[in-house]
Amino acid sequence: MTVSYEDVVSAAERIGGHVLRTPVLEIAPGRFLKLEQLQHSGSFKVRGAFNRILSAGELPEDGVIAASGGNHGLAVAYAARALGVRAEIFVPEVTSPVKLAGLRALGAHVTQTGAIYSEAAEAAAKRAAETGALKVHAYDQPEVVAGQGTTGLELMAQTGGVDTVVAAVGGGGFAAGVAVGARILTGSTGSSGVPGHSGAAGFAGGPKLVAVEPERIPTLHEALKAGGPVPVEVGGVAADALGASRLGDLAYDILSRAGALSVLVTDDAIVAARRTLWEEHHLVAEHAGATAYAALLSGVYVPEPGERVAVLVCGANTDTATLAHGQG
Amino acid sequence: MTVSYEDVVSAAERIGGHVLRTPVLEIAPGRFLKLEQLQHSGSFKVRGAFNRILSAGELPEDGVIAASGGNHGLAVAYAARALGVRAEIFVPEVTSPVKLAGLRALGAHVTQTGAIYSEAAEAAAKRAAETGALKVHAYDQPEVVAGQGTTGLELMAQTGGVDTVVAAVGGGGFAAGVAVGARILTGSTGSSGVPGHSGAAGFAGGPKLVAVEPERIPTLHEALKAGGPVPVEVGGVAADALGASRLGDLAYDILSRAGALSVLVTDDAIVAARRTLWEEHHLVAEHAGATAYAALLSGVYVPEPGERVAVLVCGANTDTATLAHGQG
Repeated sequence: MTVSYEDVVSAAERIGGHVLRTPVLEIAPGRFLKLEQLQHSGSFKVRGAFNRILSAGELPEDGVIAASGGNHGLAVAYAARALGVRAEIFVPEVTSPVKLAGLRALGAHVTQTGAIYSEAAEAAAKRAAETGALKVHAYDQPEVVAGQGTTGLELMAQTGGVDTVVAAVGGGGFAAGVAVGARILTGSTGSSGVPGHSGAAGFAGGPKLVAVEPERIPTLHEALKAGGPVPVEVGGVAADALGASRLGDLAYDILSRAGALSVLVTDDAIVAARRTLWEEHHLVAEHAGATAYAALLSGVYVPEPGERVAVLVCGANTDTATLAHGQG
Repeated sequence: MTVSYEDVVSAAERIGGHVLRTPVLEIAPGRFLKLEQLQHSGSFKVRGAFNRILSAGELPEDGVIAASGGNHGLAVAYAARALGVRAEIFVPEVTSPVKLAGLRALGAHVTQTGAIYSEAAEAAAKRAAETGALKVHAYDQPEVVAGQGTTGLELMAQTGGVDTVVAAVGGGGFAAGVAVGARILTGSTGSSGVPGHSGAAGFAGGPKLVAVEPERIPTLHEALKAGGPVPVEVGGVAADALGASRLGDLAYDILSRAGALSVLVTDDAIVAARRTLWEEHHLVAEHAGATAYAALLSGVYVPEPGERVAVLVCGANTDTATLAHGQG
């Protein structure tokens, strides 16, 4: 089970009328930010949610079900509302009142249960078995990965091609989808990335993927070391959105075959990147959404001269008060 | 003295390496936001500042001088630093410590004087006469208007043309420049706007301009009634950036000839538009920057079915804490 370039192209056709083609900002020559945090529901997650739901054919009476107190839950609730489908979202008891209010404002039926995410996820799975509702996974379903991959497809068309794509990794659905959509993973089609821009920095004929994780949530980093997904401890400033405790199987398959360069950034680097996005570029991102940019800003990844680099800014669901002068 | 389409094209060539080509986001079919608040220094003002300074040939030893406690001051300071030129900025005593710090961080020499803006402006004029520094006006200089107009030039290229451009008016330099750059004012070239999109809603062969002002700062509205710029009272939430007490002469000439549709919006509509930009579109704008969008959202301007409308979001210099949940 994997995801092909053709799956991403089909996903783009399927979800095109429902998601935004998020813009690309060239902040300096050859330095691109794809502003995916401007996406409906405030993150890329809505691409996968629409693709999963729209791929299902006739939906069960109970609609769709997901477990998430964060961006995935908001995205599934958003997509379900847009499609006139019932959505049931399971969230852990620690979920903030603001996020609960956001889910309810989108018309979702919210069940708060379990001390941590995995308990809410278990309860959601049990409930889905009872009701027959369509499960929308946060990252480890082919339709979800293909949907997220449409970001990479757009990026290549908008920039005319880049040498390097920098993306954050939690469960890995986004980075994996982008690897396929940007033709970083060429195994699925045998063809190269955008001609003329693969460059010396690229490999396998396509652009290169830099997969960025917080030091405190190294799901991909540990999976690559272990030869497969393994459980990791989850912590730090980006845990609310990148806090998967294990890389997805699909993501492992795709990212390892794509030769993704796995790099880790500190929480301080993530906080600084988020602050720079606001203070210099007037963009609001959540910590997870600024994690990819942190790799570039902190020098964990240093491009070659002339290398064309695109950074995916991927989430904006954050409290703006924390960006005010003097706040962390 | 006016500004031609060719002046805007020349400005675009002159400033191209110094300003950002700000992206356009299509939030719904035929509804475009040009994200000019993502521009360097947080507003469109830097386009005019660069064009004015780069048009001057050899600069006086004392560099450039401007009066502004707001976006114009930041823009002149930004452009001067980028070009290695000395900048002296006069600001009124009421200027906030945050804005003073911003100006100083850009290396500007700041003089705080006068109870209100006009007194600071007088002091700046006196100082310029002494030092010979190049004056950069906030709106009423041809090079400044032509620089701002590059926003309109970009907009038309990025969208493939629209029927209607919606822009905020303070001193009028931005709207006037855009009217020329988007070929709303066809008198300067005799040619039409972008073919195929002028539509029934357009006039003079080009797209239509909706010029939006806060009810409490009606510089254009009163000028059109009086047959020329007249002094107006200044107040309300957008006064820090749109608070010119009189429309510029250049802007009057251009906007009246362009047949700009002058509309007024309430402060409540501006506040609501700024909030919607954040809550639905994850964009931070200052009140002035959200004023154009307020005309559309509040129904002061209602497009025809199928009309392609571009709204210019034009400033982001604001305190993000005021966008936090429950804040005004």
